[in-house]
Amino acid sequence: MRIEQDIALAVRLADAAGNAVRPHFRSGLNAERKADATPVTEADRAAEEAMRRILQAEAARDAIIGEEFGTQEGSSGRTWVLDPIDGTVSFIAGRPIFGTLISLLVDGWPVLGIIDQPILGERWIGASGHPTLFNGKPVRTRPCRELSEAMLATTGPQYFNDHEGDHFMALAARTDHRRMMMGGDCYNYGLLANGQIDLVCEAGLKLHDWAALVPVVEGAGGTMCDWNGEPLNADSEGHVLAIGDPARLEDVVEALACHH
Amino acid sequence: MRIEQDIALAVRLADAAGNAVRPHFRSGLNAERKADATPVTEADRAAEEAMRRILQAEAARDAIIGEEFGTQEGSSGRTWVLDPIDGTVSFIAGRPIFGTLISLLVDGWPVLGIIDQPILGERWIGASGHPTLFNGKPVRTRPCRELSEAMLATTGPQYFNDHEGDHFMALAARTDHRRMMMGGDCYNYGLLANGQIDLVCEAGLKLHDWAALVPVVEGAGGTMCDWNGEPLNADSEGHVLAIGDPARLEDVVEALACHH
Repeated sequence: MRIEQDIALAVRLADAAGNAVRPHFRSGLNAERKADATPVTEADRAAEEAMRRILQAEAARDAIIGEEFGTQEGSSGRTWVLDPIDGTVSFIAGRPIFGTLISLLVDGWPVLGIIDQPILGERWIGASGHPTLFNGKPVRTRPCRELSEAMLATTGPQYFNDHEGDHFMALAARTDHRRMMMGGDCYNYGLLANGQIDLVCEAGLKLHDWAALVPVVEGAGGTMCDWNGEPLNADSEGHVLAIGDPARLEDVVEALACHH
Repeated sequence: MRIEQDIALAVRLADAAGNAVRPHFRSGLNAERKADATPVTEADRAAEEAMRRILQAEAARDAIIGEEFGTQEGSSGRTWVLDPIDGTVSFIAGRPIFGTLISLLVDGWPVLGIIDQPILGERWIGASGHPTLFNGKPVRTRPCRELSEAMLATTGPQYFNDHEGDHFMALAARTDHRRMMMGGDCYNYGLLANGQIDLVCEAGLKLHDWAALVPVVEGAGGTMCDWNGEPLNADSEGHVLAIGDPARLEDVVEALACHH
């Protein structure tokens, strides 16, 4: 029953983060830009503080790794990983496809993940041994018989260096490139869990960017790994793949490797 | 008062299109792909048919140019331009940032434009001589003192050919490239009208992609033109710029031209 309690705690974190984030969304309309306290910075900090307050009260022995306020050591072997606003560019622009990411690592591996979109009221919950829930209902990735039919998403080419961009383009050329989709950050992984897209391929992701995605994608039947097909870890160089149909894993890794 | 009546008619078109589109959004979860009747095709056709029915009943002398069903000649010098789903890739993927575009051309120039997002219930209405309304409230583009502070958006690099991509990258290099945003189609132009982003630069846009955007952007204080700073027309080769602060027009055109 421990995981049920952890899910309930994570849900309270997501609720608190959403309450902290919503007032700042589109709040800067026509406001002058400020160097220090932009709406996104304020929202980021307020949401992470709200989540840390709850964790310190209810899970004081757990460690915390947060995107804004760094690492707080723990003694339980459990670590909460928090990214209050993943997709800051979408947030700044007023696009409601950013997300709050909450993950629980046990012995370093994410066993629980939440992707929360507080403006649309959309929430994905993934947990080891549980089907992924989207707004309370189980979701599944979709089958993908051929890589050439796959719909591929990535947040943007500007996040790849030249070398990474060459590998990405080698993969893109093997997919249904007429339907390649840009932008979206964590939201794309939620859509993959829902069976709406087939692949997400990104570079430069940090632990707080990908940890919450793993239980969501895998609990829906998909796979997450690095560009070599290996489990994600600190050595993955931020090279992240999400594959809706695990039967396509080999094809994807081969396509990524084969650039000229 | 003619424009008021036209706005009221355009609003009825948008309502009808939204009612036709909504049932198809995310309807294909886990469905097998079909070659002929995908959810997006069904939504596209249903929405354009709904709009054409209204126009034939209420504005039978006006011409119609529709993305799905082509051109119907008229005798009034007025043309309705309809794109039931702009942003089909986002629609297919389940991202609620696509839009229905409705425009009225008088003597070939768009005097009225609607960008409608039927899932979020967000609607921009632009009309000559009227301030642009977002969900009924006037909106304004924001000032942009320096190109280096500008937030730039585009739907994706895959829509540029190599030559166009070089020009785009020359512009991107002069903007605040940490905040460049990909994906979004027509929705980005609405955000620009709202003062959330500063520039949109795209290639390959057809009349039905850009006509509705012009009154929305210009009624909010922005400018739309081709990559040479000239008014958009059939000779623009689909090279579309939206600039929130018209004072940056020269800088943008110069930056686009100056690639090596």
